[in-house]
Amino acid sequence: MLTKSSMLILKRSKVIFNNRFLSTSPQIKTEFANGIKEIVMCNSQARNALSIEMMENLIYHLTSDQQNKELRVIVISGEGPAFSAGHNLKELVSDQSKQQKCFQLASELMNKILDCPVPVIAKVDGIAAAAGCQLVAQCDMAIASKRSVFSTPGANFGIFCSTPGVALARSIPKTSALYMLFTGFPVSAEEAFRIGLITKVCSEEKLNEELENICNAIKAKSRDIVELGKTFYYQQIHYNVKKAYELGGEKMQENLQLPDCKEGIQSFIEKRKPRWGSK
Amino acid sequence: MLTKSSMLILKRSKVIFNNRFLSTSPQIKTEFANGIKEIVMCNSQARNALSIEMMENLIYHLTSDQQNKELRVIVISGEGPAFSAGHNLKELVSDQSKQQKCFQLASELMNKILDCPVPVIAKVDGIAAAAGCQLVAQCDMAIASKRSVFSTPGANFGIFCSTPGVALARSIPKTSALYMLFTGFPVSAEEAFRIGLITKVCSEEKLNEELENICNAIKAKSRDIVELGKTFYYQQIHYNVKKAYELGGEKMQENLQLPDCKEGIQSFIEKRKPRWGSK
Amino acid sequence: MLTKSSMLILKRSKVIFNNRFLSTSPQIKTEFANGIKEIVMCNSQARNALSIEMMENLIYHLTSDQQNKELRVIVISGEGPAFSAGHNLKELVSDQSKQQKCFQLASELMNKILDCPVPVIAKVDGIAAAAGCQLVAQCDMAIASKRSVFSTPGANFGIFCSTPGVALARSIPKTSALYMLFTGFPVSAEEAFRIGLITKVCSEEKLNEELENICNAIKAKSRDIVELGKTFYYQQIHYNVKKAYELGGEKMQENLQLPDCKEGIQSFIEKRKPRWGSK
Repeated sequence: MLTKSSMLILKRSKVIFNNRFLSTSPQIKTEFANGIKEIVMCNSQARNALSIEMMENLIYHLTSDQQNKELRVIVISGEGPAFSAGHNLKELVSDQSKQQKCFQLASELMNKILDCPVPVIAKVDGIAAAAGCQLVAQCDMAIASKRSVFSTPGANFGIFCSTPGVALARSIPKTSALYMLFTGFPVSAEEAFRIGLITKVCSEEKLNEELENICNAIKAKSRDIVELGKTFYYQQIHYNVKKAYELGGEKMQENLQLPDCKEGIQSFIEKRKPRWGSK
Repeated sequence: MLTKSSMLILKRSKVIFNNRFLSTSPQIKTEFANGIKEIVMCNSQARNALSIEMMENLIYHLTSDQQNKELRVIVISGEGPAFSAGHNLKELVSDQSKQQKCFQLASELMNKILDCPVPVIAKVDGIAAAAGCQLVAQCDMAIASKRSVFSTPGANFGIFCSTPGVALARSIPKTSALYMLFTGFPVSAEEAFRIGLITKVCSEEKLNEELENICNAIKAKSRDIVELGKTFYYQQIHYNVKKAYELGGEKMQENLQLPDCKEGIQSFIEKRKPRWGSK
Repeated sequence: MLTKSSMLILKRSKVIFNNRFLSTSPQIKTEFANGIKEIVMCNSQARNALSIEMMENLIYHLTSDQQNKELRVIVISGEGPAFSAGHNLKELVSDQSKQQKCFQLASELMNKILDCPVPVIAKVDGIAAAAGCQLVAQCDMAIASKRSVFSTPGANFGIFCSTPGVALARSIPKTSALYMLFTGFPVSAEEAFRIGLITKVCSEEKLNEELENICNAIKAKSRDIVELGKTFYYQQIHYNVKKAYELGGEKMQENLQLPDCKEGIQSFIEKRKPRWGSK
């Protein structure tokens, strides 16, 4: 999906980011083509550690093109043998203000995935550990190659994976979540698929093909409609089922008033492809 | 389970229904025998669309025999290649009052399944799409033939399956729910079984046999006891686990005071079949 | 894991237990060695029924060594063909004050598992029925031999498994939970594994080996860190995901101030085994 030649390697330059200045960094490459923005963590030497720099960049790239109606899917991947090995240990052992910043950024990163108007997909081909596993579990979907492994081994060196557990508790059965958190044992991609941590598992050769199928399916839909649906999905989860249906009925009616819905239904009746207004 | 000859084909006649008059329709056939009421959607030409008429009839038949102590299980099925293809598109493109009615009825239908004193089982042999898939996911249990498929493709024509998502979010892992909702891709019966959307999958020849096993197991129990259990299950879900146990302890004591409980325990001690008071 | 010769068979003697006196009983044997406390229900004649006596003893042994820093894991198992067949029916048919005591103790037992500072693992080799199945589902993890079976058949004799349903609803998909509760059908260990009720399934010969792997992984970690992690896991579940991440960030910072965390990180940097302060 991402060819070396086509990669936009970000130069260290000051850009405005949430009212603070951010140095974009060589830790991340992005490609934005055909509606798909792939954000590639490429600090393979540090096993794509979610350092403060890396997280600031992920947040920046997750949000920077959200107003661009061409954007339809965001893919997060990692270069090298690790998708991501989690937080930067050096930063965690430094002063408390840096620790605080680290976890505030991690929370912000997770929130940005939840709030992103387009689906965010983790493409995993390697190790996803600790906060790296959290990142996978928090994405809307995840696909992984068979050689990938997932783990939350923080307790091995004294840092329980409490925040990764937030994501695991909401995506896999309790007995699997606590197994991963208490033992720190790695879980194979096949097992991650079995327990519902990832959407698809395939050979590494097929990874981009599988991803493309999913992306094409999303791109065939209206961006506005998908945004409405994603927003509501994460909203209704917090209500009891009857209240959720009540809100859902209102949301369906709101949906029906959108121009892209009228066009979608019309195209269905006329048996032709829809021409979405907002791409 | 439902033989052609024994079917009660409802005639268009005015019957009282929740303080409003309802025309029962040829869209539904029901059979009520041996404690099992099967409600068969039989508008196969319209792929058993959950039209206003269909939903009103489903609600009517879900509730009409609830006071009848002979009623032990309700089965919902569909004639033809589709279990149900979801809402009636024509009704969704008409005026807003009809749209509103459509989603109010859909909510009411889901609530009636939750509130039904006997278990409600979806028997699926075909396509269950959009609100049809929601209906399956909202039933207490679902069994399906191998050739069945499940999908929430609404976004393809501009209507995100927000209300089906309410049911999916509460029955399958997040990563599978969002895959179905964002891509609209159909999911095979085997896959639906894997992710927990359905209770059993079997060949179409075995479908009635599997259903009968489950129904017979329910019928061997007391109706009052099953009602108490179902009601509490959907109630305790909304509490934290410790509060749920506290309420559960009270419910168990309430259960122990029921005549059918005393009879059940007595029969167990005497090693004989229980004679339930309320059938 | 538990050899006959090494077992501490508790004698009937008065011991202080939560401000009340308890007769410890021959219904339970315990072994506490190498950081692992195994609590063995050994009333196989009564299929390890969760009688008042049994539950009081389970609560006693779950809590009695919690201040002992040598304690790292608690394992609950059962001698004979049944892990546990659930409550004692005789006690349930007696006077209401005994019924009340029974369910209060059951709630207390579940709460003690949740509040236990070390992981609690069910080791199942046989039948786990009704409250016995609840006990398995409430443990942090469960491993079972292939010949084990799980069921919630209470409704067969008039007592719906409402409190076991509290545990099932929080550990397996709805469609499986209601299948077990409504039909009372037993579920094989393989099926229990598939639906996420248990963490691992293996041959009975491998059961202790599998358990040991998990226990050793836990023992390699700091007790303080694991306690912090377990406590937070069960706390954050009750919040929406964004609030949970916010609390999680604070918890991670709290974790980083613990002596065992500083030691863990130091050991990681120095590539040596950590020397945990609190064992």
